[in-house]
Amino acid sequence: MSHDRKNRARDGISRRGLLGSAAGVGVAAAGAGVLAGRMSSPAAAATASGTVPFRAANQAGIVTPVQDRLHFAAFDVHTRSRTELVDLLKTWTVMAERMTAGHEATPDGAIGGGAFAPPSDTGEALDLSPARLTLTIGFGPSLFTTADGGDRFGIASRKPGALVDLPKFTGDALDPARSGGDIAIQACADDPQVAVHAIRNLARAGFGAVSVRWSQLGFGRTSSTSASQATPRNLLGFKDGTRNIKAEDHDTVDKFVWVDRGDDQAWMAGGSYLVTRRIRMLIEPWDRTSLHEQERVIGRTKGTGAPLGGKDEFDELDLQSAGPSGPLVDTDAHVRLASAEELGGIQILRRGYNFTDGSDGFGHLDAGLFFIAYCRNPQTQFVPMQNNLARNDALNEYIKHVGSAVFAVPPGLGPADYWGSTLFEN
Amino acid sequence: MSHDRKNRARDGISRRGLLGSAAGVGVAAAGAGVLAGRMSSPAAAATASGTVPFRAANQAGIVTPVQDRLHFAAFDVHTRSRTELVDLLKTWTVMAERMTAGHEATPDGAIGGGAFAPPSDTGEALDLSPARLTLTIGFGPSLFTTADGGDRFGIASRKPGALVDLPKFTGDALDPARSGGDIAIQACADDPQVAVHAIRNLARAGFGAVSVRWSQLGFGRTSSTSASQATPRNLLGFKDGTRNIKAEDHDTVDKFVWVDRGDDQAWMAGGSYLVTRRIRMLIEPWDRTSLHEQERVIGRTKGTGAPLGGKDEFDELDLQSAGPSGPLVDTDAHVRLASAEELGGIQILRRGYNFTDGSDGFGHLDAGLFFIAYCRNPQTQFVPMQNNLARNDALNEYIKHVGSAVFAVPPGLGPADYWGSTLFEN
Repeated sequence: MSHDRKNRARDGISRRGLLGSAAGVGVAAAGAGVLAGRMSSPAAAATASGTVPFRAANQAGIVTPVQDRLHFAAFDVHTRSRTELVDLLKTWTVMAERMTAGHEATPDGAIGGGAFAPPSDTGEALDLSPARLTLTIGFGPSLFTTADGGDRFGIASRKPGALVDLPKFTGDALDPARSGGDIAIQACADDPQVAVHAIRNLARAGFGAVSVRWSQLGFGRTSSTSASQATPRNLLGFKDGTRNIKAEDHDTVDKFVWVDRGDDQAWMAGGSYLVTRRIRMLIEPWDRTSLHEQERVIGRTKGTGAPLGGKDEFDELDLQSAGPSGPLVDTDAHVRLASAEELGGIQILRRGYNFTDGSDGFGHLDAGLFFIAYCRNPQTQFVPMQNNLARNDALNEYIKHVGSAVFAVPPGLGPADYWGSTLFEN
Repeated sequence: MSHDRKNRARDGISRRGLLGSAAGVGVAAAGAGVLAGRMSSPAAAATASGTVPFRAANQAGIVTPVQDRLHFAAFDVHTRSRTELVDLLKTWTVMAERMTAGHEATPDGAIGGGAFAPPSDTGEALDLSPARLTLTIGFGPSLFTTADGGDRFGIASRKPGALVDLPKFTGDALDPARSGGDIAIQACADDPQVAVHAIRNLARAGFGAVSVRWSQLGFGRTSSTSASQATPRNLLGFKDGTRNIKAEDHDTVDKFVWVDRGDDQAWMAGGSYLVTRRIRMLIEPWDRTSLHEQERVIGRTKGTGAPLGGKDEFDELDLQSAGPSGPLVDTDAHVRLASAEELGGIQILRRGYNFTDGSDGFGHLDAGLFFIAYCRNPQTQFVPMQNNLARNDALNEYIKHVGSAVFAVPPGLGPADYWGSTLFEN
């Protein structure tokens, strides 16, 4: 790939030329998706060289098998010009498509723009592979309307009913500086430097129009979105996401992840909603808790990840049987409260990452889970689930929600689309 | 390895039994080193399964081919008891040796200690490989003497002359909360979760006696310590560490990295000194600078990494020739000021990492280079080099040193040694 990245720049392939050819690929990919019905697993088409197609019926980075590393950024929009915002979204789209294909952010790149111009790519990914990079965009409630209901960019009437700030949940200890945002970009890749490079170059292109409100690095995935992936562990030491929605289960994905045409605003059809929660884990008290108590709190065994009473990780969760004292799976166990069985069938797609951000100033590591979920409607999926957890979860003694945000994630891109074109055009 | 980690716990192998066998391996490794003269490359012995030997003439994690990821922690020591401190160092040694071999931190581990005890390993590395984990310990000046010269642990007379706080350099903007520390532990691994797990479990074992003063995650290495490694790029987009000392060059390593018996305190023979500098990169102004200026500032070309006037990365650095205007390599170019040629032959071993820690609250990413260097004497190697750079380096316009620390790194461990035994015994 290093060869690829560099030669693009040196050969002086024009942005137009590249876009043309990239869009051509997009046509084929999107076309295939349309023909086969809703394309729910763009990553199934990931090539051997580690690239995930950028254009498909749905955005990549949602049901794509979770990459190992994350760099997530939320932006504040400062421009008051709709034209400038749309221009930035178009520029970002070109850059994002290039980077996910393993090219530099721009045709000139880090070294091809001439000696007396600032390089148009920052260069730190020059020698790296695409690393399955995906870039996923979302729009926060505040992009549509100001706090007093003002119409910032002429899109207030297009704000989906499902896109409202999350309610305050019991126990929330949110830091405004780590919450909200007008626009979110999620970069996932198997190489962290590729993810960081992507966010940095997009932030750079937005200089003056947008600024980074908060960002979060995730060093290890804490869920799987494909049956082909092993279940990873979170920093509580437990396997996380055993019962997560898997890309291969198309019916479940369609039901709980992708917005359908009739749901709400037409421009969101094929999109989804993204919820992020920065969950600080109070790992010191957790680490002083007995194995029995830890397993009671979670509702699973720590070693195999099997549900209590089961033997293997994927054994059925038994919420009915009695255990030696009370129910086999406690009434306030995390898995019970988050289960579809207890929530009238509700499921969400989780895509979180472990984080460690230095120390907290009190002698402890600032560590936890950066929770990411995608759902068709956060109001009817995430909110009732989190209400149930926030009120009753035995785990609450060991965690603290310190950041929160929600974003409308537009659908995937056809050959002529840019990020947000279904919202800003038509 | 997952099998290994789990079965150790389940089979109930005693700590004594495990230590015995691990120490046996240590004898062989250390013995080989002694026979062959000073063993300057413990990692050359890294096995196919991705483990780096823990016991050798020098500590691992110094000339070991740089692993991809870093978790570095500096601790404050709170206990006033020498016995308690020594006991902790012994406990840490046992845990560190186990974890670098790919085992859980303790024989009982995350699930083998019985249901009604807190697990003695936190569990998040249960399914992961050793990932070439190395753990390297260092002792700060403040461990030996208090600010008013007090002898905290009866080791004041053993404080090496080379171990004094670094002077204030021109332009330093140090945050005390990210500087100093009584003890440092550097965890390097190819999997970040393995490195984080190691630091967390060591911090946990020290609860009450020590606390985390600061910690730093590094997501990508910015140097090579072996001729077998490609040169990576820093967040300025330039290849970094082309002229770094390589493990294969034993004479240079002996001359500039390992403390010799006659240097200073006898207990430091075979040790080294560790300097850390958290260098924030002001990437926005850098990104607005022309390619020509960037290359002038660094003294190398951005694409290939060749020195100015050269063609290939490893071409000789030409500090004498004239260029089109002035010297080919500018008088204030970074490579010139850091070069052995300009510093009377001084070299240091670099082992830094790229970092990104969220945003800085002003709309920018908080990103940069966590600089790590090992040298035989920081006063005669790092200090004059940094003085030269701090006063003259053209790069200073784009960087800010915000954290700083120095530690004495004791020698490698023989079969009966623990971390610091040459300091606390004899």
